[in-house]
Amino acid sequence: MTHPVRDEPVRQGSLRAHNLGLVLRHVAAGPRPVSRADVAAGTGLTKATVSTLVDELLGGGLLVEVDPPPRTGAGRPAVGLRLASQGPAGLGLEINVDYVAAGVVDLTGASRQVEVRHHDHRGRSPEEVVDDLVALAEGTVAAAAADGLTMAGVAVAVPGLVADGVVRRAPNLGWRDVDLAAAVRERSAALGIADITIDNEANLAALGELHAGTEARPSFLYISGEIGIGAGLVLDGRLLRGARGYGGELGHVTIRPDGAHCHCGARGCLEVYANQEVLLRTAGLDGADLGRLVAFARAGAHPALMALDEVGSALGVAAADVVNLLDLDTVVLGGIYAPLAPWLAEPVSREIAERAITSEWAPVTVRASALGTSATVIGAAGSVVRAILDAPAPHLPRR
Amino acid sequence: MTHPVRDEPVRQGSLRAHNLGLVLRHVAAGPRPVSRADVAAGTGLTKATVSTLVDELLGGGLLVEVDPPPRTGAGRPAVGLRLASQGPAGLGLEINVDYVAAGVVDLTGASRQVEVRHHDHRGRSPEEVVDDLVALAEGTVAAAAADGLTMAGVAVAVPGLVADGVVRRAPNLGWRDVDLAAAVRERSAALGIADITIDNEANLAALGELHAGTEARPSFLYISGEIGIGAGLVLDGRLLRGARGYGGELGHVTIRPDGAHCHCGARGCLEVYANQEVLLRTAGLDGADLGRLVAFARAGAHPALMALDEVGSALGVAAADVVNLLDLDTVVLGGIYAPLAPWLAEPVSREIAERAITSEWAPVTVRASALGTSATVIGAAGSVVRAILDAPAPHLPRR
Repeated sequence: MTHPVRDEPVRQGSLRAHNLGLVLRHVAAGPRPVSRADVAAGTGLTKATVSTLVDELLGGGLLVEVDPPPRTGAGRPAVGLRLASQGPAGLGLEINVDYVAAGVVDLTGASRQVEVRHHDHRGRSPEEVVDDLVALAEGTVAAAAADGLTMAGVAVAVPGLVADGVVRRAPNLGWRDVDLAAAVRERSAALGIADITIDNEANLAALGELHAGTEARPSFLYISGEIGIGAGLVLDGRLLRGARGYGGELGHVTIRPDGAHCHCGARGCLEVYANQEVLLRTAGLDGADLGRLVAFARAGAHPALMALDEVGSALGVAAADVVNLLDLDTVVLGGIYAPLAPWLAEPVSREIAERAITSEWAPVTVRASALGTSATVIGAAGSVVRAILDAPAPHLPRR
Repeated sequence: MTHPVRDEPVRQGSLRAHNLGLVLRHVAAGPRPVSRADVAAGTGLTKATVSTLVDELLGGGLLVEVDPPPRTGAGRPAVGLRLASQGPAGLGLEINVDYVAAGVVDLTGASRQVEVRHHDHRGRSPEEVVDDLVALAEGTVAAAAADGLTMAGVAVAVPGLVADGVVRRAPNLGWRDVDLAAAVRERSAALGIADITIDNEANLAALGELHAGTEARPSFLYISGEIGIGAGLVLDGRLLRGARGYGGELGHVTIRPDGAHCHCGARGCLEVYANQEVLLRTAGLDGADLGRLVAFARAGAHPALMALDEVGSALGVAAADVVNLLDLDTVVLGGIYAPLAPWLAEPVSREIAERAITSEWAPVTVRASALGTSATVIGAAGSVVRAILDAPAPHLPRR
């Protein structure tokens, strides 16, 4: 990626905010507590500066001190620092076609709670769905509060195209131009959370996958299978949201230009060939749930295996397009595709091997999501935590 | 796009280099000469700092002073600064299937020379082609030197997949694993240019288009039609090269999964339906040149118009995939497609309107490349100039 050069002069005034984040992320990066001296050595800041910044972060409850390990050599062992596992945390909420979910991630990145409530939302008004969501969230927030966690913000995931808090279109919910941020704000006074973000579910799941990984700058296509199909594109450790925020619409990549009609108005979209309903119908399990498909596939039932191969092949054609365009090295099967990965990975890999021009020398790994079906809600909650790590200054007491 | 936070501490040592670029780019940004006071006001640096940095840039020949405009009010008019149109410049070279080209861009971004030499390179060895290229370049560099320009670096464009100076595969040239950087270095001692970059032709053309534009952070798909089809993806003012540098392979996006065989080994790639040969053949102009197709289209000849509609439709299906994935707001028709844009734009737009899920409220503009058929070589030369503006310090005399 070509990075345009940042054209801001470096001024003293922004240094404190910059360096607060630097110190916080340095502590966050390691698996073990680090000392103030470690932070100074690792960041290049002076010990005096580190000391001042650490005191601020301790005061704001973002860091905690841990007792030094027992003395093993000469000298006084240093007090260690680690991220606070109590205090500020992130709330993730998800609206999907047939469920709502809520989750909490603490500052260390640990998932503290995930709750799902199933309900088919097709035909219901956004207000009714938000009422359900907020009712679920209230319980989650109360439980988290009992655990010493306060919500620094909330991110709400929806299976649709989102800009500035408005769901422009969520075809599988039948929503158009729903101001979801306003609806959540209106109904969530009891939650006491001012910072509300609305985002596409596949984007948030991809962020969850990104933050769950250990690679420094991973590149992957996260495919989110729910009732519809979405995707998050991560290149060099960055989520590509698209020029206007509407990227990642893998479900509407064309598979067959003259193919069957899609509910979006076009013909031959991936979603026509690889959605959950088609998968179950082709497998002869119309109306059954996913668990049943897994059971049939495990038992080697021919229609189930055929259906999975067909759907995997369609996913692979679309994934190969993405690989040709963005040269991503990994395809992550998420949502309903995660538990089906044992059967989908092969046909997806096969199509990529055949269709990606670089596949000969630049292989692509296809694997299940590390976070499974909770990726979206954990990713949503994690995105709130990430924002604190990226810019901790606003979360500290005024100086 | 989500930008990961940069985790470098801000140290005094990097300030000079950072601020040199800041000053240089501030001068570069305006259409008119600016004074030292303008630079100070625009960058937030002190006048004293600006003065020191400007002196360094004048000394290195990157800036020049211009006489102040005649006095119009009170006070002494300030001396203006602008980029030097003599001195360091960029050399762009292009190897394509049926020509080589060379171009020079000066520090102001002005194209100073473009030369093209036609020759069908299919079946020739990389060494023979590089010999031709270097012979052309020697003339170009000599002419530029007579004009007061010295080449700060050279970027070589090839229609293939490139990594670290090696052309991994250029299917239409029949090249595999050609160390082009080494080949150019070996043969170009006479050019006296140490800094040699090899890059994909569509990427360089997209950079040319990016730098020719006036928008701050444009997003577009640049489609490069030559014998093959390539693309450069620009999102928020950044060229997306892909995780391993092999992105932009629009020519191998699948149009019909069971379609005709492509030379790449896959079936139904865009290149099968929209390349130059197919276009001319469908138009009943097999073996003719592009000018003839344009003449027939202008005259309203039915087969020519049909062929252009078919090819435009195939391009549109692939472009719609890109719009669905990256939500780009502009499609730029480059290379051979630039002069054909009057006939291709409509079918491309039509397919995008039908297939991009956001097209209803997030329109996509389809237009010809601003640089026409010289985009690649100008983009290549411009990329050298851009590197100077991004980091001028190495181009200045040692302090």
